[in-house]
Amino acid sequence: MTTAPQRIVIVGGGFAGLWATRALRDAPVSILLIDRANHHLFQPLLYQVATAGLSSPDIAAPLRHILRRQNNVEVRMATVARIEPDARRLHLDDGSVVDYDTLLLASGATHAYFGHDDWAPFAPGLKTLDDALLLRRRLLLAFEHAEAETDSARREAWLSFAIVGGGPTGVELAGTLAEIARHTLKREFRRIDPASARVRLIEAGPRILSSFPAALSARAQKQLERLGVEVVTGAAVEAIDAQGYRSGGAFVPARTVVWAAGVAASPLARSLGVELDRAGRVRVLPDLSVPGHPEIFVAGDLASVVQDGKPVPGVAPAAKQMGNYVARVVRNRLAACPAPPPFRYRDHGNLATIGRMAAIVDVHGWKLSGLFAWWFWLAAHVFFLIGFRNRLSVLINWAVAYWSYQRAARIIIGHKAASGDNESVDAG
Amino acid sequence: MTTAPQRIVIVGGGFAGLWATRALRDAPVSILLIDRANHHLFQPLLYQVATAGLSSPDIAAPLRHILRRQNNVEVRMATVARIEPDARRLHLDDGSVVDYDTLLLASGATHAYFGHDDWAPFAPGLKTLDDALLLRRRLLLAFEHAEAETDSARREAWLSFAIVGGGPTGVELAGTLAEIARHTLKREFRRIDPASARVRLIEAGPRILSSFPAALSARAQKQLERLGVEVVTGAAVEAIDAQGYRSGGAFVPARTVVWAAGVAASPLARSLGVELDRAGRVRVLPDLSVPGHPEIFVAGDLASVVQDGKPVPGVAPAAKQMGNYVARVVRNRLAACPAPPPFRYRDHGNLATIGRMAAIVDVHGWKLSGLFAWWFWLAAHVFFLIGFRNRLSVLINWAVAYWSYQRAARIIIGHKAASGDNESVDAG
Repeated sequence: MTTAPQRIVIVGGGFAGLWATRALRDAPVSILLIDRANHHLFQPLLYQVATAGLSSPDIAAPLRHILRRQNNVEVRMATVARIEPDARRLHLDDGSVVDYDTLLLASGATHAYFGHDDWAPFAPGLKTLDDALLLRRRLLLAFEHAEAETDSARREAWLSFAIVGGGPTGVELAGTLAEIARHTLKREFRRIDPASARVRLIEAGPRILSSFPAALSARAQKQLERLGVEVVTGAAVEAIDAQGYRSGGAFVPARTVVWAAGVAASPLARSLGVELDRAGRVRVLPDLSVPGHPEIFVAGDLASVVQDGKPVPGVAPAAKQMGNYVARVVRNRLAACPAPPPFRYRDHGNLATIGRMAAIVDVHGWKLSGLFAWWFWLAAHVFFLIGFRNRLSVLINWAVAYWSYQRAARIIIGHKAASGDNESVDAG
Repeated sequence: MTTAPQRIVIVGGGFAGLWATRALRDAPVSILLIDRANHHLFQPLLYQVATAGLSSPDIAAPLRHILRRQNNVEVRMATVARIEPDARRLHLDDGSVVDYDTLLLASGATHAYFGHDDWAPFAPGLKTLDDALLLRRRLLLAFEHAEAETDSARREAWLSFAIVGGGPTGVELAGTLAEIARHTLKREFRRIDPASARVRLIEAGPRILSSFPAALSARAQKQLERLGVEVVTGAAVEAIDAQGYRSGGAFVPARTVVWAAGVAASPLARSLGVELDRAGRVRVLPDLSVPGHPEIFVAGDLASVVQDGKPVPGVAPAAKQMGNYVARVVRNRLAACPAPPPFRYRDHGNLATIGRMAAIVDVHGWKLSGLFAWWFWLAAHVFFLIGFRNRLSVLINWAVAYWSYQRAARIIIGHKAASGDNESVDAG
């Protein structure tokens, strides 16, 4: 056919896309990695940027830099508009067109408001660095607004925070926010007592952290409550606006609501023309390819994989394993070797952090909570952070934060408010 | 009259305002410090944030945190709209009103386009953290655009950078940008050679760094040229648009133009109703008070002070000295002691950094350039950074950058482009 090397296009530089790219470093292929950001993001620590513990560069590294020595890869910062599977072609937002022999779609997930997209401006989610900086600005500004407010009801509404969704992200945000209110801001305000802030974590299901065993969920809830979080389970949110939210028919004033409840797959999957699951993820074949298109793979949060009757969770280790697996399928095909056995997710366990010195761990049946679990969580996360410099910087920030309760990144930026942000920053 | 303590309002938490606030810590006064940001900014290192060497929290600290133990001060994040000197009253942007007994106006300077405000969107300046992040995004995106561009003339325009103004900020930006193009981005692109980027520093006067002796200026220019910067002196810029700039009648394509040429005083000064100099600064009396209003002081970049026939420069040490001096005048008045002698700026010398291992120093007649000057500059700047944690973080970032040429903060944020930014970040 042609003597040019196989052209492999990988959409998304997250865990799935980046791990696949690196696993193909010695393959006789020409890779184009497309991402709309210029960086790989260590998403498990994104909540730390939102809560001013870390700064953006601590948890992000430029894709070009990570891959600079891998000569078979080209990085392009661009947004993919749609896919033409039959023509083996991608259309980019800027009008240009990219052809491929093999495609790996790993564009991940975004937050979903379950048909209530009008809630988005009042309850931002947390998926990108921009989201994190918007959230940081809102959280810090709420205390500034409360300090400037003379009406006591309005002041209380500024000091009322609600986090919708009791999964890992919601729990991390609630625990950290309570710590900020009770410790970090101590002595800094003259008219309000930041410790009087109410932080509510609202979960529609019967318990928080439902992917953990019930006993660990219960211990996590106790730890959260000890940090000062009010945990409300079995409570669906019925409405959200700029003043607060409604749940169980009652309106709760809360000027700052954060959405940690739902994720939906990247809308790009729709242009594949194949079957999607309820969350918009692609139902892939056992080798992670798309039915009818053996040259198209889907990996990471965008892939719907059922294993032993349960869905493979949307976590970083699963994405990395899928990325590595797709690379293996591609390499075997190129070498005319038999296909590897179907993809199997190896679950090494489940960690969730709750706040200062509090976490839960469920690793190979080994169940921990509290201080020791927190140290375990910390070691695992620092170890997996990409890039030596980032690890060191994160460790230093955490060591300082641990001893002083101080948070290094408590800087409000973005005076020219980003779209979706309905607060004027200059308004005191 | 009243038994309440003197109400002192300080507008601006920069070097002048913050130093005055701290110098009044034991005075029997009630201080309100108003700033539109929540942080004190170490402006001398702002160019490092713009050029991705440092992240925002490295050079900024929350004002509330710095002042948390000073019980006679209240911090308010707000923008002052205007002053009513006769009523001793300030009007804030949010409509509220603040009364004072004594006012210190230290709201600093902003960039000025000398009657060409239409150039602002095409040639952003560098005064705030938001400016720095906008500039960082533009600089990094220019290389991304060049990589995606197929037309060679358009590609060259993306790889053409112009910095207007050969003062310290312009020199720092030009030197660092040349280092990024030649070293930091090495090997990271496949279609362009970042080292082929042209960095032009355009100065209308006969030489760059005109506040230094001519011999040091000449040495600085040599060092810049060795780093790869084209220095153009005696060249006024006549027009700037999205495609480039015009100088000496010739149009030069340059998609990225940075404004480092002019500063103007904060427009707030106009509402004082007193005489301003050409740059909009307040001509203050020898005790830094305003003619006709002994209860209003002006300090920092907003004050026009002439000493021995020369204007006191708009640098951090001068601002700190003015802030301390105003605090002394206020304390003496409260204690019914004689006023201190007129303000005198003690000039400890002049430093400018040029780039990697290159700087010039003029301290008490001691003139240095090159590597040793650079070490001197580095030590002085790290020493004066507020907050132990910031110093440590800056030192680590610099050490890593020094050995690896890498820049920690090369992260493009702000997909939802800020107002004033006419580039779409997603456009590849």
